[in-house]
Amino acid sequence: MAPTPASEKGKVDCLVVGSGPAGLMMANWLSRLGVKTRIIDKRGTKIFNGQADGLQSRTLEIMDSFGFAHRVWRESNHMLEINLWNPDPQGNLFRSDKIPDTIPNISRFQQVVLHQGRIERFFLDSIAEYSDIRVERGVLPETMDFDESKAEDNDAYPIKVQLRHLSEEEATPKQSATSANGAAMQDGLFRSNLSGDDSEDLLNMSRLNDKAGSTETLEAKYVVGCDGAHSWVRSWCGFSLRGEQTDYVWGVLDIIPITDFPDIRMRCAIHSASSGSLMIIPRENKLVRLYIQLTTTEKIGSEGTRIDRSKINPDVILGSAQRILHPYKLTYRYCDWWTGYQIGQRVGDDFSLRERIFLAGDAVHTHSPKAGQGMNVSMQDTYNLGWKIGAVINGTCDRTILKTYQSERRRIAQNLIDFDHRFSRMFSGRPAKDVMDEEGISMAEFKDAFEKGNMFASGLAVDYGKSMIVAKEGSAEDQGDGTEVMGSSGADQGAHSNQSLATGIKLGMRMPSFKVLNQSDARPWHLQELLKSNGRWRVIVFAGNILNPNQMRRIEHLGAQFNSLESFIRRYTPDSQPIDGVIEVLAIHSSSRKSVDVFALPAIFRPFSPTEGWDYAKICVDDESYHEGHGEAYKNYGIDHEKGCAVIVRPDQYVSWVGEVDDYAMMDRFFAGCLQKQKKPHIGSIDAPERMFGGKDTSQKVDSTAADIEVMEGTVDGGPNAAL
Amino acid sequence: MAPTPASEKGKVDCLVVGSGPAGLMMANWLSRLGVKTRIIDKRGTKIFNGQADGLQSRTLEIMDSFGFAHRVWRESNHMLEINLWNPDPQGNLFRSDKIPDTIPNISRFQQVVLHQGRIERFFLDSIAEYSDIRVERGVLPETMDFDESKAEDNDAYPIKVQLRHLSEEEATPKQSATSANGAAMQDGLFRSNLSGDDSEDLLNMSRLNDKAGSTETLEAKYVVGCDGAHSWVRSWCGFSLRGEQTDYVWGVLDIIPITDFPDIRMRCAIHSASSGSLMIIPRENKLVRLYIQLTTTEKIGSEGTRIDRSKINPDVILGSAQRILHPYKLTYRYCDWWTGYQIGQRVGDDFSLRERIFLAGDAVHTHSPKAGQGMNVSMQDTYNLGWKIGAVINGTCDRTILKTYQSERRRIAQNLIDFDHRFSRMFSGRPAKDVMDEEGISMAEFKDAFEKGNMFASGLAVDYGKSMIVAKEGSAEDQGDGTEVMGSSGADQGAHSNQSLATGIKLGMRMPSFKVLNQSDARPWHLQELLKSNGRWRVIVFAGNILNPNQMRRIEHLGAQFNSLESFIRRYTPDSQPIDGVIEVLAIHSSSRKSVDVFALPAIFRPFSPTEGWDYAKICVDDESYHEGHGEAYKNYGIDHEKGCAVIVRPDQYVSWVGEVDDYAMMDRFFAGCLQKQKKPHIGSIDAPERMFGGKDTSQKVDSTAADIEVMEGTVDGGPNAAL
Repeated sequence: MAPTPASEKGKVDCLVVGSGPAGLMMANWLSRLGVKTRIIDKRGTKIFNGQADGLQSRTLEIMDSFGFAHRVWRESNHMLEINLWNPDPQGNLFRSDKIPDTIPNISRFQQVVLHQGRIERFFLDSIAEYSDIRVERGVLPETMDFDESKAEDNDAYPIKVQLRHLSEEEATPKQSATSANGAAMQDGLFRSNLSGDDSEDLLNMSRLNDKAGSTETLEAKYVVGCDGAHSWVRSWCGFSLRGEQTDYVWGVLDIIPITDFPDIRMRCAIHSASSGSLMIIPRENKLVRLYIQLTTTEKIGSEGTRIDRSKINPDVILGSAQRILHPYKLTYRYCDWWTGYQIGQRVGDDFSLRERIFLAGDAVHTHSPKAGQGMNVSMQDTYNLGWKIGAVINGTCDRTILKTYQSERRRIAQNLIDFDHRFSRMFSGRPAKDVMDEEGISMAEFKDAFEKGNMFASGLAVDYGKSMIVAKEGSAEDQGDGTEVMGSSGADQGAHSNQSLATGIKLGMRMPSFKVLNQSDARPWHLQELLKSNGRWRVIVFAGNILNPNQMRRIEHLGAQFNSLESFIRRYTPDSQPIDGVIEVLAIHSSSRKSVDVFALPAIFRPFSPTEGWDYAKICVDDESYHEGHGEAYKNYGIDHEKGCAVIVRPDQYVSWVGEVDDYAMMDRFFAGCLQKQKKPHIGSIDAPERMFGGKDTSQKVDSTAADIEVMEGTVDGGPNAAL
Repeated sequence: MAPTPASEKGKVDCLVVGSGPAGLMMANWLSRLGVKTRIIDKRGTKIFNGQADGLQSRTLEIMDSFGFAHRVWRESNHMLEINLWNPDPQGNLFRSDKIPDTIPNISRFQQVVLHQGRIERFFLDSIAEYSDIRVERGVLPETMDFDESKAEDNDAYPIKVQLRHLSEEEATPKQSATSANGAAMQDGLFRSNLSGDDSEDLLNMSRLNDKAGSTETLEAKYVVGCDGAHSWVRSWCGFSLRGEQTDYVWGVLDIIPITDFPDIRMRCAIHSASSGSLMIIPRENKLVRLYIQLTTTEKIGSEGTRIDRSKINPDVILGSAQRILHPYKLTYRYCDWWTGYQIGQRVGDDFSLRERIFLAGDAVHTHSPKAGQGMNVSMQDTYNLGWKIGAVINGTCDRTILKTYQSERRRIAQNLIDFDHRFSRMFSGRPAKDVMDEEGISMAEFKDAFEKGNMFASGLAVDYGKSMIVAKEGSAEDQGDGTEVMGSSGADQGAHSNQSLATGIKLGMRMPSFKVLNQSDARPWHLQELLKSNGRWRVIVFAGNILNPNQMRRIEHLGAQFNSLESFIRRYTPDSQPIDGVIEVLAIHSSSRKSVDVFALPAIFRPFSPTEGWDYAKICVDDESYHEGHGEAYKNYGIDHEKGCAVIVRPDQYVSWVGEVDDYAMMDRFFAGCLQKQKKPHIGSIDAPERMFGGKDTSQKVDSTAADIEVMEGTVDGGPNAAL
């Protein structure tokens, strides 16, 4: 299924190394942007169980922007409440607190848990639906060559990679060939976890050996290393991770628990008096994941050294869990997966080499898994990078935009590591016996950290710094990681925002979502549902009260500027694309829905197609719905109902600019700082032919044959009820 | 893919003739109930476009009970508002009213529109997921033989059917081979409407000719004729439809409209002054369906005779629409499908022959399509029938239950025809010029009829009469169609309900749905989501305030009765099934969620499994959720918060009985009237072994090896972040 036969030399725009969540997110973006891509993985199959499982609210929002969050939402376990259990003064466990797991009202999605294998399945299906890109398994980069002199040449393929095809045996991870406790591996049971839609993967694996041992050389414009904590791409670049390894040792069990502990279907953080700590993460299909601290009784490695793997097995881990949970009973008959690990927190110094070779995910940050952040931050790395590489390859953005990847994501990685360090220390520590016990961890402090951590853990606290794509006040260097990200426009020539016009829409943060109604059919949509990840920038025009003639004049003037032949919309949109192909204009007005119709607004808000008529999808209203209440979008966004405002949103839903609704000049300045002027700009009409509907025909390009009716099919034999 | 090779004689429990929506719903039920089934259709492929498209709220609820409503909800167009357009005194069109399309708060789903081909696709996928049943296309019943003397013998196969396999040419409907307006049929464009997941269907079609011309004889316990208005099964039975044909002639266009009519994305009912009426039904993928009255100008047939089909074509239909919509403009470039029809309303006298051969869908009722009811009522026919046939075949219910199919559904069909007759007359009639114009239709009256019709059109007004499966007051004969449906229990020995204990849960109507929280994980569920269509009866115990010791004693006593070896639950459940296999007990209490845990309630509400521990899915609470508000279930159901009540719900979600929460005797009497006592009743324990958790081990059947741990797999090499 690879676009190029394995035996041939070939060229690709982008080579993605590794098909875990970070690699799949990258390929997924590129599938939407029409970028010629290959994605390889040294493993022979995708993951079927175990591994990471926590998904943040923000990750679900992102998946929804690609159209598959609903699959996760249906299959996953939803995390709604955290129960804290602590020792009382006599050392007996009691439930000290119940707190919400996801903070109410920060997202339309709550944190959920679903094993990584299903997540990967949804990505694979999504990629296949939109492109010919397929993960090539059992394929490994052997050598790489990078001609740095061509790094800044947009059309060059400066990277040569030699790929090697493995045999089925080479491509099979060790843990599925042997069992850690010496018993024979139960492969049949292992595979019985498969969903029906995974069977093709297994069939493909048996075909690996056809190509085993062959090599090929590939030329690439970009390489993205999503190849994990032991990244080959990172090693090749000579980059390293910095951080530390602690001496806390943890075990993980994925089991169907048999227990009388009453909160087994809740996320629980349990500190025992002296047997260590335990975290319960209830999962899909009756499974529960337990993170279990292996205390000094089983302490296997000495301080500062690595643990002795051979001494960790499910019996040892379960024994620890039973001691922590005492007097509650815990056992199991079914164990889906288990592992052991030592906590370490590390971040990479460099996220890219000359903005041609990039690193993402575990390749640049590792940390403990208990907070459920790892898979999310990894996916969000490439969610940040994907559209930027796509835009450079497709000629919409200048290469300088790629510098924002490191400045934005390295900062996030550092935040993550700091969070994890603080959280792990408190969770692994012994609970304080009383206020005088200074070595112990205060349970009140722990609860406080947990609650504060929730905002971070939702993924919604991400706040990108000032750059050529975020028109914020302050210092770009301070707000990022020091990388120069103001591009050619420079800080002084850059656009300026007026945050006070939309106090609920924070510059640098993701666009919050509230319900608005489509003007034409009254259907409520979460605003984010209109911001699909398809590579488009959006200008969201909060048009205010368009029944006020003064306000309406502002909107009409703005519409005329958008539609003029010199407008930034036309300038940055190639003639080959529809008028909304690079910058999509959306309108949300605050007048009553029933008092106006779509024709009240200028044509740019409802561009005309000679084959499909007016576009009814782009004009919305902040009004009461019939069945889903009132979204109160203006109020929630902190926007004046009368005067409105305008917002520029990046292709990844982060907010670039906020300003006056008709501040066309500032919008123009913003886009000049990051978009590329097209050689053949868009000059087509967006209005209906005058003789049809009285619209102004602004160009000669409109097909004049709208009245030539084609009948595609028909029948009079039978019909809705064959009652003729 | 047929369970039996075509050349062999075979036996099946149920043969379904016809694979439209009614036939597919039947096969879908049987796929869940493990009934040996074949489903045949004379057509070579499923429908790809056109045909019926409206889906009621109730139909979506039913689809959700089978797990695929979300696919419809995502792809469909949602119908939210009806706009009425009428002539003003000068005869000019104006929008006279906007009314909600689905009445707010009657269902969690609103009416939607999606073409029948997609609906059929979702059924096919659903059937394939749960069974080996596959639609056999290009297969026709040729002759049938019914030995009536064996009709009441449960084990007999009294029906012999000879099936004939058609060639591809024979199985291809005429309208896809020729075009109605004389131009060549654009098959390529026709097929370009296919979704990716339909391609296998087309491949299968090319395999038809392997079996062409061969015949086979099949013995069946039951035959269900879902073979449309011209039903072969109905003809064989000698049954007919009664009703009338009017002289109103209508055309249908499925187009992407190019228009300046402002409400084109709303459902509209448009009465022009003298050019006839038009209904707009906006659909998925920018399509709009127009139902267009062809007025006297084009009147083709004379009164009382059939129309001349050759004179109806898209130009004629569009011309009518343009005159009705004047002064608004309407044209199109893309037409997906079109047809013409004359309104007729007819209902069958008999819905079954000796409760062995059944008829459903268009085979027993036809009417006009504009109200979007046809596909819904057809599917709901077999939704009513499927579980009953399944229960009789599986030995849970007596054959007498099958009589309730005709008594319940024939009444609905008659209601539908009455509704359609009234609605069609008002919609087809000329609008009154003023109050003195008695021949014209009053537009105020029309609006009123539209609003009242909305409840009917939602599918939620269905109210089944008194019978052995609905413990209602009154006369079973009067409330049904005259069929005897009290079974062996008779009216006097039957169970009696106390409707006043739950004023919002109407006997004979579908169980309404409000949100409740799972006690164990605080997740909100719509109550209906717990009532999956899997053949189980439910006793829903609204347990009231279980913190009140008196109330708790009632619940404990009830739990002990449910769990006794003589209980109706054990008596009607075969030993081979789990304890909840025939009657599932659910609890919804009204105490605060945080004040109790699942162990507060008796074991029957959380039956123990030696391999999976306690069942956490069956105990819910009416309390505030973190993210989705408070369902206020007790309030909405009209149930006392302290004392609660109990409700028996049929496998199809209709309400059988309402009574005191601990009225075990009446529940027992109810089930005695319809369920079959098992030869080997269920005697297994539902409690945990005493030595494990201190539970009472009520039988010797519990496996005592719960502590024998099986490790299914594991790894210490890698792990959540390979940080070891």
